[in-house]
This record gives sequence, structure tokens and C-alpha cells, in this order.
Amino acid sequence: MIKHALPVTRAEDFAQWYQTVIAEADMAEESGVRGCMVIRPWGYGIWERMQRLLDDKIKATGHENCYFPLFIPLSYFEKEAEHVEGFAKEMAVVTHHRLIPDGKGKLIPDPAAKLEEPLVVRPTSETVIGTAFSRWVQSWRDLPVLINQWANVVRWEMRTRMFLRTAEFLWQEGHTAHATEAEAREETLKMLEVYRSFAEDCVALPVVAGEKPENERFPGAVETWSIEAMMQDGKALQAGTSHFLGTNFAHAQDIKFQNSEGQLEFANTTSWGVSTRMIGGLIMVHGDDDGLRVPPRLAPWQIVIVPMLRDNDEDAALIEYCKGLQGELAALSACGEPVRALLDLKAVKSTNKRWGWVKKGAPIVIEVGGRDMAGGNVSVIRRDRLYREDGKLDSAVVAKGDFVGAATAMLEEIQKGLFVSAKARLDGSIARDVTDMAGLQAFFADGVKNPGWVEAGWSRPTGAALGKVVETLKSMKLTLRNVPQDAAAATGACLFTGEPAVERVLIARAY
Amino acid sequence: MIKHALPVTRAEDFAQWYQTVIAEADMAEESGVRGCMVIRPWGYGIWERMQRLLDDKIKATGHENCYFPLFIPLSYFEKEAEHVEGFAKEMAVVTHHRLIPDGKGKLIPDPAAKLEEPLVVRPTSETVIGTAFSRWVQSWRDLPVLINQWANVVRWEMRTRMFLRTAEFLWQEGHTAHATEAEAREETLKMLEVYRSFAEDCVALPVVAGEKPENERFPGAVETWSIEAMMQDGKALQAGTSHFLGTNFAHAQDIKFQNSEGQLEFANTTSWGVSTRMIGGLIMVHGDDDGLRVPPRLAPWQIVIVPMLRDNDEDAALIEYCKGLQGELAALSACGEPVRALLDLKAVKSTNKRWGWVKKGAPIVIEVGGRDMAGGNVSVIRRDRLYREDGKLDSAVVAKGDFVGAATAMLEEIQKGLFVSAKARLDGSIARDVTDMAGLQAFFADGVKNPGWVEAGWSRPTGAALGKVVETLKSMKLTLRNVPQDAAAATGACLFTGEPAVERVLIARAY
Repeated sequence: MIKHALPVTRAEDFAQWYQTVIAEADMAEESGVRGCMVIRPWGYGIWERMQRLLDDKIKATGHENCYFPLFIPLSYFEKEAEHVEGFAKEMAVVTHHRLIPDGKGKLIPDPAAKLEEPLVVRPTSETVIGTAFSRWVQSWRDLPVLINQWANVVRWEMRTRMFLRTAEFLWQEGHTAHATEAEAREETLKMLEVYRSFAEDCVALPVVAGEKPENERFPGAVETWSIEAMMQDGKALQAGTSHFLGTNFAHAQDIKFQNSEGQLEFANTTSWGVSTRMIGGLIMVHGDDDGLRVPPRLAPWQIVIVPMLRDNDEDAALIEYCKGLQGELAALSACGEPVRALLDLKAVKSTNKRWGWVKKGAPIVIEVGGRDMAGGNVSVIRRDRLYREDGKLDSAVVAKGDFVGAATAMLEEIQKGLFVSAKARLDGSIARDVTDMAGLQAFFADGVKNPGWVEAGWSRPTGAALGKVVETLKSMKLTLRNVPQDAAAATGACLFTGEPAVERVLIARAY
Repeated sequence: MIKHALPVTRAEDFAQWYQTVIAEADMAEESGVRGCMVIRPWGYGIWERMQRLLDDKIKATGHENCYFPLFIPLSYFEKEAEHVEGFAKEMAVVTHHRLIPDGKGKLIPDPAAKLEEPLVVRPTSETVIGTAFSRWVQSWRDLPVLINQWANVVRWEMRTRMFLRTAEFLWQEGHTAHATEAEAREETLKMLEVYRSFAEDCVALPVVAGEKPENERFPGAVETWSIEAMMQDGKALQAGTSHFLGTNFAHAQDIKFQNSEGQLEFANTTSWGVSTRMIGGLIMVHGDDDGLRVPPRLAPWQIVIVPMLRDNDEDAALIEYCKGLQGELAALSACGEPVRALLDLKAVKSTNKRWGWVKKGAPIVIEVGGRDMAGGNVSVIRRDRLYREDGKLDSAVVAKGDFVGAATAMLEEIQKGLFVSAKARLDGSIARDVTDMAGLQAFFADGVKNPGWVEAGWSRPTGAALGKVVETLKSMKLTLRNVPQDAAAATGACLFTGEPAVERVLIARAY
């Protein structure tokens, strides 16, 4: 029996396991501020790697980064409110600009410093960017406008969960304006593909890209597309969205241009975003009962070298030996970038270091003791193959030169292996043979562990008919995820309406 | 007579010129939100380059990035308020978490969604990071803690000026905790040196590094150090600060650890920051009457290729020729990084493009017309040598291969040249021979254009004596900047008190 590094396993309690990984891998912690977390170096380092790789793709497709204000005047939301029945938005509202003492040892907002117009902390920058677009776009020559922003946003969520749903979170939001509908539609799908390839190639997260049903659309969007990833408990996580907005936002925000014939037209716009939620997905797809496993392309440190110091005369030579190894590794490249190798010299016991890095999910941990050094060797622990068949830790003694020679291939193999096994799990967990509601009920029956998803033919109902479907699913704790781009053609009858199916839709429990 | 690209020159109106550069170089604009700006792609691209280069240096010195909450509970500031006479802080205060319609077509903060404890939008993260440190630090083994954060912060400034003083701005704030005073002092100076080398090597901004006088210290700091840069109007700009906080903040925030002898001690802490203000410095040091000049290491695009398209059959071949050039340039390295070359194919007239890039300050603009292509040539415009002696634009026809062969050296020469000329200006504008107040008055007399700075011996007065000095200087619109690290030994009498001088201090008008 393997004794795993975490006090709770996925099978025992998936939700508890998730929180435990975040704590034990030093990724994030509660901040003392409601709904806001502190992202610690290992968690933030993974986000920085995500940013770098996604940003490269965003720039390679011709987008430029900008920065827009954190605060949005309340009046910017009034247009939206006119159209929304029972409008009530959970947002952080700034009403004062000064603190003063109340004379009883406490501070209060200064009543004399009340803002004339309250400011909202941006829940998204749609309105403020749209207003900028209306200034920037005059002629067809100004189009397309292709911009992106990396920023913090705030939504006053009642129930929060680290990385998955927090009051403040980090994201990128792309916003574009185009002269034609065709070009804006092409942009929407181009960015969906950027997200798919980022998720799969960088995060090693297999996803299903497709169009969201009407009820799941971003308010005001003509079409909303998403990538959906499957967690190890079988639930779906929406990991990125891309919206085709038609001219709806251009009308609301007055984004007009003179076309080449001199006529005034409204622009077609898009928006698309990926957030720190992706880190939650990374944990729930790649984590195991020993902690996190970080794909090498995202690992702040890909190879961690731990000298087994003993507070004796040999230590200095051991450190030199390890420094030499670090230098040789840093000269290598893997996945097109220099290898990131850390020499861990912290004042912590070596075995604690080993398990610390295992829980953090560093792809490779190298331990070097006196005997390793004497033999010109290193001891190699691969995070993706932690245990031997007999349940013992798999630490392989290898000649140092051989390890250096193999390191690039090993990192690339780990990256690929994480994707391949997650992909096999996803492919093996989508049922395509459910044809009626009884079958759906049985598939998701209580007691069935990690049921996975159902992909079924449907008639693409809209309006009230769709509302009825959504209600029924809701009573089963299920949601419509998306209509996969690459699903087979639909045949037979709609699972819900009995009418002829026109396409296939994914049904799942979701985060 | 040269007809410059900007409608206003530095000599005519420096403040107006500054705003004009920002507008004409497409760096930033008013956002419609009080005190907040929109940073446009060229301005934000420069900030991204600054971030990348400074972040590399921060990481190379062993620091890791984290992320802390945007919101800080009001109570976190109460401890501080107890010690501050007439405490009144200009900060954005969040008091509600929901918007509802008022029934008259407007939105209002929902009275039913008032926060029990208001939240402050971080003006700096000192208190929330200190609170985290008190959780993280238990034993000497946990030290040092070396972290950094890139974030937006908000200070409710009454008078704002783009990049120099805005309500919201972007910065990095480093925070560290150490077991000993000596180590924390060493850290303070190490980061000061990181800032000095970043400013000089990356931004090409010559600076004077030194300790701030007592009156200019960060509240609660034992020592505050700064780098000061000289703008072309002779004023000083504080471009970065590094604070040694002793155990003051550790006491306030309860950052204690058990030392190796088992005794409880307070940690010594530091903090240090650089902000988007640095972009204001860049403009005011390197800008000229044709716009901005961006040092190649910071330029989002170092070489911009403009094909002189004529909407005829030749265009396709011209674009191919330019693409070839772009490919050859992208394969080169300058200043240790791949060359960033843009092929500008926007639907804009070629001469407008030329002057657009001149105003933006791209280091090299390459124009390629039909005749250039026929001869295997390119036309080269260097932003640092825009005009010939006869006042005509200096556009040199060069064989394409020769230009490619020379491009790396040319970029490095431009980088160095900008620094050298700014350094000569700085060195030539510090008077060291002022020995009395009459001399000081004459140096800074009304009507003297760009007087520069005075470095004078002083007795380092403190308390009320220093207060008197500061008041006197204030009446002359002057400030104490810092005591330069590498100033000569002080001799003679203090400029202010007549007592023997113990060190030399910089006096200047300042932003």
C-alpha cells in the first residue's frame, strides 16, 4: 500500500482534496479579505507562465496590450440596466475618497468626501473599452482594432472557492472591432482556437471547443463559444470563452465608422477571456494523491536539485557538484525555451524538501547525496512516475552526464504524457449512446462516481422551449455545456423534445 | 530652419510639450474617469518592456512574485491612524456591494448591500503583505522572505498628470523580511542598485542614487533611498525608492521569529517600488521636438519597415521584399535579445506612417520604395539623428545587406548614445560651487531657464532645524532630493545652518 503525501485522497473527498492541494503546494491562501485570496509564489509563478505563453499567442495573432481604468462610472451601466428586468448587480461600489477618524479610535469614510457619481470596480472592462473604441474608430482605415488587457476584476460572489470563483480574480480580456461581420466571426473562432491550443499545448488540458446554447450566452452576445475541460470528478469546467457580439455593443457604445464608400456603419465586435480559473482546472485535471503535477511548460521550476546536506565538511563539495549540474541544465532547451533548473539551498531538511517539491508538482526532482557525487551520479525522481510497481518511491540513480543528456526529452515526455492521459480520460468519459431522459437519469444517478459527460443529439430549442430543458436539467444538477465543433452529425430524435436532432450537445455537471 | 513634427517645442512650453508628446505618440489618453488614464498600445508596450527587464533583475536577485488582494479592510489602517496627528487619507473607499435602479432611470448603491466594514482600494500593499508575513514567518528557517508584486494601486490625487501622478497607477512593490538588521540594510542597497542599473542600462536614464533626508522618508522607514533623474527642464524626478524599515513595521504587524537560539525576535523588513512614473521620466529625458525617442531596449518595435505602397502592380513585390528584410532582422540579436522588427502594412499614407513612427520614437524607420527595391537598397532613418546639418531629414540609402549587417550595432549605438547625451546633460547641470543662500537664490532665480541642480555641503539637520530648512526651500519652490552615495566628502560650512558640513545634499525643483 502506497502512503501518499496528502492527508486526503481524490476518491475520499474531491472538494477537500482540492483545497488540500492548494494549501500543501503553497499555491494560495485565504487573505483575511472576504472572497479575496493571496496567490503565493508557486501559484503565481504558474500564472506568470500561463500569461507569458498565452500572451505570445495573443500577440502572434496581431493583438496589442493596453490598460484601461479600474474604476467605471456608475452611469456606464445605466444603459444596460434599462434593458434588464430586475437589474441588480453584485459589484464593489466606491462612494468616498477619504478616510477620517471617528473620534472613537475607528476610521470612517469622510462624509465630506462623498463622490458625486459613485464608481464601480470593473467586473469587466466592456463598457470602458467600448467607449474608447467609439473615440478611436472613425474610418474603415482605423479597423480592425485588436486589443487585449491583463487585469484584475471584481465580482461580488457570495460563495467563493480558490481560483474557481473569487471576488477578485486576474484575467485577460480581448476586445476587437471589425468592419465586417465575416471578419468578426473569423476573429471569434480564431481566438477560440488560440484558447484551445493554449489549453492543450501549454496546460496539457484536453478540451472540447464549441458553441454555448442560447441560455449560456454572454448577455448581449450573438454567439458565445467556449472550451470545456473535464475534471477528475467528471465535472466540466468552462476554461475560456470567445464572444461574437455582432453590432449589439457597437450600437450601445456608438462604435461607428465611415466605410470606403463614405457611408456610416456600426462596427462588429468580439470579446474573449481566460482567467486564473485555469489554475483550478490545472489542479483538478493533473493533481493526484501526492499533490499537484505541473506540466513542464508551466512549471516555474522544471527541475529542482536538492543536495542532501549533512552539516559536515562534504557539504561545500556537494553544493559545487550541484551548481555544476544546474549550469549544465540551464544551457539546455525544452519545448523551445531554456530549461528552468533550481538549486534548493533553503535551510530545510532534505526529505522535507523532496516531499515539498513532490506536493508542488515540480516535474523532476534531483537528489544528490555524497554517494551519488562519489559515483558521478544523481538520483532522479519523476513526478509523473512517482512510485515503482512495488509501491516504493521510484528514485533512479543515473550517471550525471546521462541525465543531462536525457533531460530535454524527459521534460517533453512528461508534458506530452500528462496530456495523453488526461485526453484518454476525457475521451473515455463522454457517453454518446444516451437517447432518452431515462438513460440520462441513469447515467447521472446518485451514487455513480465521476460519471463524465453525455453528448446527445438535440433539436436546438430556443426561448421558452429551451427554458424548459434548462429547468429539467437543473433539477438533475446538470447543465448544457456546448455544441462541440467537431461532433459527428446528429441523427435520430432530440433527447429533450423528441423532434429531429439537428446537432449534438454536451450535458454535464459543472463548476 | 527645421520644421519639427510637434506643434509645440520644449523651449516654448515644456508642460504643454509633455502632454503633446503623450498624445502624438499615442501613449495614453484621458479615460473619462477622474484621474485615470487609458494607456494605449505604444505606452503600454513600453511598460511591458520595462516590466520584463526589471522583473528579470528582481528574479535574478532571488525574489519571487506573489499577488495580494486589491481591497484592504479599513481596520488595517487604524493602527497607523493612532500615530498620525490629523490623519486623513485620500483613498478610494468601497462601501456597497450591489447596484440597483432608483426607479427614476438611474442606478444607486443598494442601501441593503452596505458593507459592515468598508474596504479601501490599496494605495500600497504594505499592511496586507505585512499581515501575510506574520503568518509565514515563524522561525529563522523561514527567513529571508523575498517577494515582489506587480499591481495597480490607487491614491486619490487632486491634481493629476499623465504617468507622473494619476489616481490609479501601475507599479511593482517589493517587500522583504530578514533575520538581521545587516541583511535588511544590504537588501535595501541591493535593490537601490537594481533600480540604478535598470534606469541606466535599460531606460538609458542617468540617475543619482542616494539617501533621502529625514523629511522625505517614507512614513515609518528608518532610511529611504532614491534614484533621482534630471528632466530636460532641469527638474528632478524621483524614479524609484528603496526603504529600510528596521523593525518598525514588524512591530506594527507582528512579524516575529524564533532565532537559532530559540529566542523570539522581530524581523527587519524592507520595501521598494518603481511605477509607471518611469515612463514620464523617459519622455522628459529622451523626448525632443519631434516626439518621443525610445531607447531600443524598451522599444516595442525597434525597427519599423514602411513599404511605400502605391496601389499598383508593384506593391506585391515590394511587400515580399520587405517581408524578406523583416525575416533577416528578426534572426538578429541586439542587447542580448532578438531584434523586434515590424512590417507596417496599415492602410495609412506612407509619409504619415513615417512621421507617426518618428513621433512614437521607434529607434529606426526603414522606408522601401520601388527605386530602393530595384537597387537592392533600403532608406534608413535613425530617430537619434533625424536631420542633416542642412536641416533636411536624414534618410540614407543603403544596400539592404549592409543595413542588416549593421543593424545590431546601430541599435546598441542608439541605446548607448541616448544614455551618454543624457548623462552629459546631467553632469553638466549640477552646480557644486554654491556655498551660501544668496548663491542658491541666484542659481534658481526667476528667468533662469533649466537651472539644473545644486549639490551643496550641509550639516544634516534633523527635527525642527530640518523643518526650517525645508520651509525656506519651499518658499523658493525647491526641495531636498537626496544625499548622493558617491558624492565627494563634505568640506566647509552647511549652506543652511552655517555649522560644519558633514555630507553633500542635492537641491532641486522637482515633479
